[in-house]
Amino acid sequence: MACVQLTSGRDKPVNLERAERLVADAALAGAKLVVLPEKWNLIGDADELRSGAETLEQGESVQAMSGWAAQHGITLVGGSITERREGRQKLSNTSLVFGPEGELVALYRKIHLFDVEVDGLVYRESEAEEPGEEAVVCRAGGWSLGLSICYDVRFPELYRILALEGAQIVTVPAHFTERTGRDHWEVLLRARAIENQCFVLAAAQVGETRPDRRSYGRSLIADPWGVVLAQAPDEPTVIWADLDRSRLEEIRRSLPSLASRQPHAYRRSSPA
Amino acid sequence: MACVQLTSGRDKPVNLERAERLVADAALAGAKLVVLPEKWNLIGDADELRSGAETLEQGESVQAMSGWAAQHGITLVGGSITERREGRQKLSNTSLVFGPEGELVALYRKIHLFDVEVDGLVYRESEAEEPGEEAVVCRAGGWSLGLSICYDVRFPELYRILALEGAQIVTVPAHFTERTGRDHWEVLLRARAIENQCFVLAAAQVGETRPDRRSYGRSLIADPWGVVLAQAPDEPTVIWADLDRSRLEEIRRSLPSLASRQPHAYRRSSPA
Repeated sequence: MACVQLTSGRDKPVNLERAERLVADAALAGAKLVVLPEKWNLIGDADELRSGAETLEQGESVQAMSGWAAQHGITLVGGSITERREGRQKLSNTSLVFGPEGELVALYRKIHLFDVEVDGLVYRESEAEEPGEEAVVCRAGGWSLGLSICYDVRFPELYRILALEGAQIVTVPAHFTERTGRDHWEVLLRARAIENQCFVLAAAQVGETRPDRRSYGRSLIADPWGVVLAQAPDEPTVIWADLDRSRLEEIRRSLPSLASRQPHAYRRSSPA
Repeated sequence: MACVQLTSGRDKPVNLERAERLVADAALAGAKLVVLPEKWNLIGDADELRSGAETLEQGESVQAMSGWAAQHGITLVGGSITERREGRQKLSNTSLVFGPEGELVALYRKIHLFDVEVDGLVYRESEAEEPGEEAVVCRAGGWSLGLSICYDVRFPELYRILALEGAQIVTVPAHFTERTGRDHWEVLLRARAIENQCFVLAAAQVGETRPDRRSYGRSLIADPWGVVLAQAPDEPTVIWADLDRSRLEEIRRSLPSLASRQPHAYRRSSPA
């Protein structure tokens, strides 16, 4: 399995060319499943996202991903792209999964939009985009994949649903700020792996993706015990890891926390 | 605020004496709220726990905690003790909170029992104990406290309920194994702090609490950004931190993830 780390920007043809090359590198080295970062094909302000958004039917990035998956015979989790949907005012932040014949296997629209303030910089993802409404687990390459995007990682309830629906691998394409990345990226990704006893494949944007806004990078692959199997340095690159299914099974057998949930107790009592 | 780290064992009078001394140290240094570790008054096998279990009405450790809280004028989160309840076959792992006049403020019975296998060693907490059935948040010393115990930390759904019910501080008295502690203790505690934007006070057992079974220790205080404000070395001791309420409020204002949950979306869709 591989994660591609990129420094995407506002020039879509350049982004596509760079992504194509690193997906090819990953596939030629033997990866059967490759994950791209969030908004790998275009990063920009609200207006730039509106003008570069694509439909599933005709989008050039959508067709490119389908083609790369088929060309290399891999499963491609296409990070996310900004999607335009018929009859909708707002856009979606959408993760598409393609199978080894180029077929669309599943899609997930980001549920939690990044409307925050970090170090005085304001982010309003909801200005141009609307939230998705459904968690998604799909089958690909013999594994159950749970899909998520970036800011979702702060919401453990989403990953719990993915695990209970059978996810063995969770993908987290991302575009984290440097500040939140430094303090929260690895700890939240490892916690999701540990508490849900699944592999985590987190492919990130790195460096200056917009003027004066640097992205944290450090794409990461964690195993179901929370061990970091691979982590990217601070540049566009590919990271790899072999995922051992028997390790997942052994962890879930010996420390059966997923089976030990107590849903009837997840409500509040009164103080004594 | 302070966390007391202990190496408790099967000798209850010794455990009480050591706890009394460290609680006094914490209070004399100015702590207004002190947290003890899990099973601070007695650690042993199922038979030893049965013979040392206490009722809330007559237990010597219960009375001792009430007395210490009143003597020092502090809030005391009494880690946990093994509780015997009228008419029940099995015991409970119970966290008691006492106010500065020695009054019982709240109690929480551990929901998730430690029935696991680690490095070939089998733990069956349910052999002698039964799980609690309710999450608990209480008011103490001007703060809202969410209560939890040890293995609970693997279950993010519990901490989410505590946060949604207003918890600003979560207490995690614990008795972690060395192996799980090394790989999971800090990452899970920091994740609970970050995702729920609350302080975490985690008081641990350290060292050889039972023959050939070593406890991880590293008692820890984290702030709502996940920063580790204090961590204990590998010996019985006290750790302190000043908790800054305005930091919690600023984090929740600028990065309002608690307010951005999307409960309607926490269900699964079908693959495309």
